[in-house]
Amino acid sequence: MSSALTAAQVDGGDGETPITAAAVAALTGGRLLGDPSVVVQTIAPLDRAGPEALSFYAHARYASWFTATAAGVVVVATELADAAGPSCVRVVVDKPIDAMLPLLARFQRRRPRPIGVHPTAVIAPTASIGDGVTIEPYAVIEDDAVVGPGSWIGPHAVVGMGCTLGRDVRLFAGAVLYPFVECGDRVVLHAGARVGREGFGFLPGPTGITRIPHVGRCVLESDVEIGANSCVDRGSVDDTIIGAGTKLDNLVHIAHNVRVGRMCFFAAQVGIAGSARIGDGVQFGGQAGSAGHLTVGDRAVIAARGAPASDVPGGETWSGFPARPHRDQLRAQAALARVMRILRPLEQLVAKEPTA
Amino acid sequence: MSSALTAAQVDGGDGETPITAAAVAALTGGRLLGDPSVVVQTIAPLDRAGPEALSFYAHARYASWFTATAAGVVVVATELADAAGPSCVRVVVDKPIDAMLPLLARFQRRRPRPIGVHPTAVIAPTASIGDGVTIEPYAVIEDDAVVGPGSWIGPHAVVGMGCTLGRDVRLFAGAVLYPFVECGDRVVLHAGARVGREGFGFLPGPTGITRIPHVGRCVLESDVEIGANSCVDRGSVDDTIIGAGTKLDNLVHIAHNVRVGRMCFFAAQVGIAGSARIGDGVQFGGQAGSAGHLTVGDRAVIAARGAPASDVPGGETWSGFPARPHRDQLRAQAALARVMRILRPLEQLVAKEPTA
Amino acid sequence: MSSALTAAQVDGGDGETPITAAAVAALTGGRLLGDPSVVVQTIAPLDRAGPEALSFYAHARYASWFTATAAGVVVVATELADAAGPSCVRVVVDKPIDAMLPLLARFQRRRPRPIGVHPTAVIAPTASIGDGVTIEPYAVIEDDAVVGPGSWIGPHAVVGMGCTLGRDVRLFAGAVLYPFVECGDRVVLHAGARVGREGFGFLPGPTGITRIPHVGRCVLESDVEIGANSCVDRGSVDDTIIGAGTKLDNLVHIAHNVRVGRMCFFAAQVGIAGSARIGDGVQFGGQAGSAGHLTVGDRAVIAARGAPASDVPGGETWSGFPARPHRDQLRAQAALARVMRILRPLEQLVAKEPTA
Repeated sequence: MSSALTAAQVDGGDGETPITAAAVAALTGGRLLGDPSVVVQTIAPLDRAGPEALSFYAHARYASWFTATAAGVVVVATELADAAGPSCVRVVVDKPIDAMLPLLARFQRRRPRPIGVHPTAVIAPTASIGDGVTIEPYAVIEDDAVVGPGSWIGPHAVVGMGCTLGRDVRLFAGAVLYPFVECGDRVVLHAGARVGREGFGFLPGPTGITRIPHVGRCVLESDVEIGANSCVDRGSVDDTIIGAGTKLDNLVHIAHNVRVGRMCFFAAQVGIAGSARIGDGVQFGGQAGSAGHLTVGDRAVIAARGAPASDVPGGETWSGFPARPHRDQLRAQAALARVMRILRPLEQLVAKEPTA
Repeated sequence: MSSALTAAQVDGGDGETPITAAAVAALTGGRLLGDPSVVVQTIAPLDRAGPEALSFYAHARYASWFTATAAGVVVVATELADAAGPSCVRVVVDKPIDAMLPLLARFQRRRPRPIGVHPTAVIAPTASIGDGVTIEPYAVIEDDAVVGPGSWIGPHAVVGMGCTLGRDVRLFAGAVLYPFVECGDRVVLHAGARVGREGFGFLPGPTGITRIPHVGRCVLESDVEIGANSCVDRGSVDDTIIGAGTKLDNLVHIAHNVRVGRMCFFAAQVGIAGSARIGDGVQFGGQAGSAGHLTVGDRAVIAARGAPASDVPGGETWSGFPARPHRDQLRAQAALARVMRILRPLEQLVAKEPTA
Repeated sequence: MSSALTAAQVDGGDGETPITAAAVAALTGGRLLGDPSVVVQTIAPLDRAGPEALSFYAHARYASWFTATAAGVVVVATELADAAGPSCVRVVVDKPIDAMLPLLARFQRRRPRPIGVHPTAVIAPTASIGDGVTIEPYAVIEDDAVVGPGSWIGPHAVVGMGCTLGRDVRLFAGAVLYPFVECGDRVVLHAGARVGREGFGFLPGPTGITRIPHVGRCVLESDVEIGANSCVDRGSVDDTIIGAGTKLDNLVHIAHNVRVGRMCFFAAQVGIAGSARIGDGVQFGGQAGSAGHLTVGDRAVIAARGAPASDVPGGETWSGFPARPHRDQLRAQAALARVMRILRPLEQLVAKEPTA
């Protein structure tokens, strides 16, 4: 790495608030093994942590890092409590991932929020800007847009004509809302998210290919999060709707007329084709997808890289392409392996058969 | 959804021009069932439409929405003309999707075009700007760029040094043309499209890995459309060319030296590797791809998620990975299912055979 | 193509420095066949080259282009030296791709670098800007950011609070560094790259779903290149690290806590799930991926569209999904084809068996 990175900068990612091992145990409900007065003031992974750092040891796969760590305090999973390792203080907890939450929140280095509207922002006179809004350099708010109170519009973000944003909406740098997108409260768009584009629809017409006009809506309900560089197209006649609380990771594509339910999680690079209906609580793994004009039932799970080409019943886990129930997918894989083990004798059998 | 969204805003997506049921029938050549004087003034999907809205009922899968709709007028497919449903006026047409086109065009709420060059745009003195061009806030037009008449450059868009844009080119927010890209007439780049980047080419050299300089061109012929956040790289020695009328959806990747023919359609998240030659009228389904250095013949279709690793003859439909003719793909899937049905007896047979 | 593109513009991609055939031979160590005094001043592919252009003929697949080319000088691969073709001067070399490098470097049309800081750039007073830095229009450099000497920040790029950039870092248009990202020397971010976003991590908490705070680092070591619209998330507790010299193509996703080694090459649309450990010198083909929490050993190769779901030993080539050694993958494909050839006789055999 560059020698331009000084130690102080490399140490980043922490709020630098000192905390004792005893306090760590108290915050996490963990069992303390060692000196309760040891103080740490940063969080770091085992292999980078120094004596001033708190770290986590949650999986045996990191055993070699644990034995070599210089961390001052380590939160250790119950089943690893007695692992051979350094003389650091241990805080033993049942679920390190749950223990992480209060600790991370305490150490998180928060970005101070700039105040008010930067003078370089271009805001249409007909736009309505709520109380307590932050608008960063070079943001553009177009005609008739409504930005709800407490919202925070990042640099170079664009709120298109007639968009409506609820309370505490957050647009990161360069996020773009095409005209007439509707966002509920606490919606988050990460850098480069593109929402409300006219969908990919064309029809042969008298003078060649014609773009289908898109008069449907594009709605992000409250608490929706759209990842960096993800795209959500607006509807043609129907609406594109992302239900409340649903989270999309980076580089996801949602085509026109898709309706996604509430509290869904779509991992990175998922793509949903037009007019699909996705229920509540559905999960798509990374690089998964869905054909258009089908229904995925509530709480279904599409495994990474899976992509259904037909309706998926609620509550089931499907995988592969075309996706089928994961159990069937595994059976098919196993069947091929079994066939391979007897393929030569089978070929010999067939060769011997007079009727073959 | 957020209570901040008022009814008037939620109703969006329409041009709010009243039209009678009789006029709807006349525009679509449909058969009117009901009161010709009923007036509608918006378009909405069946489940959201109120008495003031026109809607469409094109597929039996939406039967439950149709029976419950409050729409004033519904354009109904011939085979669904007698479907049980509400007392709305029906306009019966053979192909609802074709009927949609004139209606949507009539109702579409168009964005008024801002006039002229926004004072915040940075335009190099050596750039040439045609008549009737719109340049929005914070756009950047670099040295020697040529922007053809009628073009419309969105906020934060960048037209790199020496780029040439024909007539009526449209760059949406944040689209970036690297230097020396050539665009024909009516080319559309959606938000965040990146065109003309040096391709991903490296060679081991005397002092380590060297980037291959890219002196080839990057050409978007007339009527090309590039989706949001899609990327088209420039050529190394050869040219990257997207043929006239070709449309790319969102998050598509076109590598260096790829030549795509005319009137192709690439769905979202398609990726084409370097030096592939794609003919005219080729279609790639969503998340499909192609290996590099191969040829896909005219009017071939690569199904969703398919990806050829060898040449594809013109006119054929291929699927799977490595892609093969779709018929063969289906046969292979069926064969595995057939094997699974007889796998246990086959294993028993082999176990009984002395020679196995 | 648009008639607005004049010949001079269409010819682009060259530095227009005249060079004789003799000099081409000298630069490449090639064998000259023809008049050494012929002069060329551009580089172009065979099908576009005129008498003033140098071109390359490296693969027999371009034979028809070669026979019809009007190029003045053609660098020809040894095995094609005697190919029937036009009367152009030929320079015969063993490896045209290696010969390309010095020639392309000579002809490359370089973009003149703008000098200094554009007056529209917004630079926080607490930011530190090194010597010889270029900052283009509308770039934003936030509080406490450090931009190393010789760096070049493109239009609308954002360097977030507390980021540290080494020497000669290059951000293209609209690239965004979230706060506290660390870049070594000569790091390149292409247009729309998004680095340092909080990763996609959520936990059920007392008041619903909670975002996991991300206090880990996001580090791009020296000579890393991030393609257009690619995304690299920051770590939660662990760090996200891209090792020195690693190159990512366009639309790549790297999730939180991923550690990628040195000198890796990831082709376009690759996605790596959280906490994966990728060794040195690893290559991922286009649209490939990796499950999270696994290890890919040094110099492993994951073929295009492949995606391991378990550890990959160093030096092996894996393909398919779930990925396995490429040899096994080919055997499985071949086995299915073999089964298909004997499937009907097998079904007949089973039908005849009394015990089946």
